Amino acid sequence: MTVASSSILAELLQDITAPDPKWLKQARAHLDILTKPRGSLGRLEDIATRMFAIRNGDLSVALTKAVYVFAADHGIVAEGVSAYPKQVTQQMVLTFLANGAAINVLANLHQAELTVVDVGVDADFGQLPGLLHKKVRRGSRNMLHEAAMTEDDLNSALQVGLDLACAAHEKQQTLIAVGEMGIGNTTAASVITAVLTHQPAATVTGKGTGLDQKARDNKISVVEAVIRKHFALNQDSASDPIEILRRAGGLEVAAITGMVLGATRHGIAVIADGFISTAAAALAYTINPTVREYLFPGHRSDEPGHRFLLEYLGLDPILDLDMRLGEGTGAVLAMPIIESALALYKQMATFASAGVSGAIT
Amino acid sequence: MTVASSSILAELLQDITAPDPKWLKQARAHLDILTKPRGSLGRLEDIATRMFAIRNGDLSVALTKAVYVFAADHGIVAEGVSAYPKQVTQQMVLTFLANGAAINVLANLHQAELTVVDVGVDADFGQLPGLLHKKVRRGSRNMLHEAAMTEDDLNSALQVGLDLACAAHEKQQTLIAVGEMGIGNTTAASVITAVLTHQPAATVTGKGTGLDQKARDNKISVVEAVIRKHFALNQDSASDPIEILRRAGGLEVAAITGMVLGATRHGIAVIADGFISTAAAALAYTINPTVREYLFPGHRSDEPGHRFLLEYLGLDPILDLDMRLGEGTGAVLAMPIIESALALYKQMATFASAGVSGAIT
Repeated sequence: MTVASSSILAELLQDITAPDPKWLKQARAHLDILTKPRGSLGRLEDIATRMFAIRNGDLSVALTKAVYVFAADHGIVAEGVSAYPKQVTQQMVLTFLANGAAINVLANLHQAELTVVDVGVDADFGQLPGLLHKKVRRGSRNMLHEAAMTEDDLNSALQVGLDLACAAHEKQQTLIAVGEMGIGNTTAASVITAVLTHQPAATVTGKGTGLDQKARDNKISVVEAVIRKHFALNQDSASDPIEILRRAGGLEVAAITGMVLGATRHGIAVIADGFISTAAAALAYTINPTVREYLFPGHRSDEPGHRFLLEYLGLDPILDLDMRLGEGTGAVLAMPIIESALALYKQMATFASAGVSGAIT
Repeated sequence: MTVASSSILAELLQDITAPDPKWLKQARAHLDILTKPRGSLGRLEDIATRMFAIRNGDLSVALTKAVYVFAADHGIVAEGVSAYPKQVTQQMVLTFLANGAAINVLANLHQAELTVVDVGVDADFGQLPGLLHKKVRRGSRNMLHEAAMTEDDLNSALQVGLDLACAAHEKQQTLIAVGEMGIGNTTAASVITAVLTHQPAATVTGKGTGLDQKARDNKISVVEAVIRKHFALNQDSASDPIEILRRAGGLEVAAITGMVLGATRHGIAVIADGFISTAAAALAYTINPTVREYLFPGHRSDEPGHRFLLEYLGLDPILDLDMRLGEGTGAVLAMPIIESALALYKQMATFASAGVSGAIT
């Protein structure tokens, strides 16, 4: 590891503390005196408990919600791994700015401030307003032949996420969703998942945006070849999350990893979206396991590799609706569920205040 | 069957028509031109498609949401089947009126108009304002010894639901959730589920509001005894949904069955909540299978019998959060998901309008 990446890594690892367990205990005690059978709100109680601890025992202020969509292109698309041409990355960024994509609709509906970040799209957007211009380079390299990123590329992309987490903290955002747009990025996520979870490529590689079986077989072969090139004979790389990210990630994946680590440092709850953003979050968790305390998987993606990442993280998704769109859509869709859990925690009467009898013991 | 129940049944069955399949086809075609990979919004696409058909191809008007909570007591509580004393039914009705229960919080947050209906609470509420006074009698009878309802009781309770569905239609409500409060009613739902789905009592009988294993074993014995008394040697009753409802239902279960059938007649989408309201909806579906076209299960309850009812209905729940509270909570919690599906359907740009390339074919 070079000095540069060590330095970023040191920043990533400093000052990350888990929520104080006393808040978890206090939250559980509060939930048990509300007018409902004990535990009957199920996972909403877990969500409220974790959020209470993340917020240091203070849920009095409403959540300030935001969603960050990181866009980048991928050299690996040259291997025919996607059902869509890579120009769609650029086109979808323009669609985000025109308020016409799925994430726009959901962010508007659920009142999450949307930030679209160009961290590596293979297009010249000029000074296009509304877009956060953080391009590291025009797409990652083709990981079939070389590492997807140099160490400098990786550090720059991680820094984009870290800086945005700082900015989110300054804006007092308290619940952020991370999403992505990048034609070819399910291939990157498949490699990361196979290496992190030790699953075969065929198990964790799906149809992405809609490959047929033949094209999916090709994608599996590409994932296998990338693993052979970078990890099969190189256990040092295979066990180093930074090196997995550098060799097999994308620029948007690295930015999300940085944002998740940065948000965790600032005590901000993060909702991961689907396969790609969860791969980035799983790398952040591998770098620092405390990440898990601040992380909520918004949903379970229809991509087959996603469930292995969720198992790796040891976290259950909030929703399970067979979505596989990305953009942060599944993460923002989980926001009203989290808000419901907090409203119940704050607003329900207690058995004592409502004069309701307790259980017969 | 008496003249009275035949007459109600005739009313239940008349004028129920399925949505025109042309709307389903039109909705699917529209979803396929939106700026996302085909099918990538998963079950949100199914929800939008079904709602488009239910609304006769017109989603231009925002949904008007409501939740109805039907409360009643159960004679079967004399057999020690609940962890809570039956007074809790009355107390929780008062808590609903004081805005302190879980359903109040969720109805307020998700802007669903809440109506609390006394259809059979064993208490005298007098002229208490805020409560809809539709008491048929002070609790159903003990089904271990006799049918839970006489035919008159049943017809009156069904009529409460039918009338409310008419009123909902007049108020132009377009998405209604049905929930309940009734200490002892998971026992009724367990009997209904066992008879409808041919599962053993032990498989479909859970801990309700929080029984320990010994108390649950007793509850299973009670469910078995009720099935022996009313259905084991009486296949006519076991195959007649009206008779299952009369013998093993509760007054609130019957009112929900009536409301589901009535809503279906008026073309109103209905969200079932957990075990009890889905048992009522499953009876409505057995009476008229077209009910299924208008029904959305809000969530999968932690009660073990619920999944068998969902299989019986052939419908997937929207949420799966291990909730087991009732009151309509799981149904109202699904409302923002349904609204999200409709917003995506209405507001997303098309590939053509956004200038986004289609899939490589």
